[in-house]
Amino acid sequence: MQFSSVLLENAVNEFARLPGIGKKTALRLVLHLLKQESSEVAHFSEVISRMRSETRFCKRCHNVADTELCSICSNQMRRQDMICVVENLRDVIAIESTQQYNGNYHVLGGVISPLDGIGPNQLNIETLVRRFENETVSEVIFALSPTIQGDTTIYYLQKKLPATIKFTTIARGIAFGGELEYADEMTLARSLQNRMPVDSYMSK
Amino acid sequence: MQFSSVLLENAVNEFARLPGIGKKTALRLVLHLLKQESSEVAHFSEVISRMRSETRFCKRCHNVADTELCSICSNQMRRQDMICVVENLRDVIAIESTQQYNGNYHVLGGVISPLDGIGPNQLNIETLVRRFENETVSEVIFALSPTIQGDTTIYYLQKKLPATIKFTTIARGIAFGGELEYADEMTLARSLQNRMPVDSYMSK
Repeated sequence: MQFSSVLLENAVNEFARLPGIGKKTALRLVLHLLKQESSEVAHFSEVISRMRSETRFCKRCHNVADTELCSICSNQMRRQDMICVVENLRDVIAIESTQQYNGNYHVLGGVISPLDGIGPNQLNIETLVRRFENETVSEVIFALSPTIQGDTTIYYLQKKLPATIKFTTIARGIAFGGELEYADEMTLARSLQNRMPVDSYMSK
Repeated sequence: MQFSSVLLENAVNEFARLPGIGKKTALRLVLHLLKQESSEVAHFSEVISRMRSETRFCKRCHNVADTELCSICSNQMRRQDMICVVENLRDVIAIESTQQYNGNYHVLGGVISPLDGIGPNQLNIETLVRRFENETVSEVIFALSPTIQGDTTIYYLQKKLPATIKFTTIARGIAFGGELEYADEMTLARSLQNRMPVDSYMSK
């Protein structure tokens, strides 16, 4: 693409560096911003810049936060005795959006994956273990990807954490609206093994 | 979506206001930026902000420019006696990318469309007419959309501009790589009427 303005070209190049945004989409976005009021674009860029410079990671659960403790950890209305262990920030947002969980979180920052060079030391595991010294936890829910890496991480954490705690994992089975014939064998087999009484299913 | 950080939520909302960017894509972009160095994100937002505040429109052709005259108008290596009339900035970029045109431009800012309330006064037509007082122009190329609005605009401009000038329009026909059976009748009929000698076609 040939640009008659270096400023415009720079802006297109910056947008095109974002994931999933090609040159043509970047140009469309930049031309859209060019049509907006100057103050609106200044606001846009300030919000983006502040998002990066002023957010931090919660010192307790490693979730993204505006203050030292994230809004979930500092919310006294939530159950303090449940920790949901997730891989990343996106998972926290996904679970919060269901409005079905009222406990705390712990963001690992990934799962144990020796092939990718990710061992327990690269993850926020040490801080999770230390939480059990100060907090009274009765249940740990593992909400990790249903992969070998996820299962390895669950196995490792279970050995590391006090054995008196109730460990659970989110249910795995056929997705709501999913069709049996398209489900993979592993999922279908597991969902048969872990079948549940119709009564308890219907009441949910 | 539920966010534990207001700063993050604001950034997602700003991205989601861009055309073609939904909430999920916005979140993906924001989480990507959150993983970048703070200085990189500051650079990103500065480039976007400067693009809007420091670019202006060329006082001659209304193309986007970093200085009073755009880089095309101020390039003395280009032919000064040809003006290509286009609708918007995107068209300039598209034509420049072909590297087949070496003259100047004039960006109308749209086409005459009474149904949308766009008359000649809403477009950069007055400035185009005045260019003929100072510039020696031998050819005006209309590179407008092949629509009734585009044709109306060509007709209107032809009446407004000096009759001594050679008026041309970009060729309309079957697109390169296009298949005849999928072409609409109008395009196919026009491309038959405006058929060209094979010699002149092959040499291009």
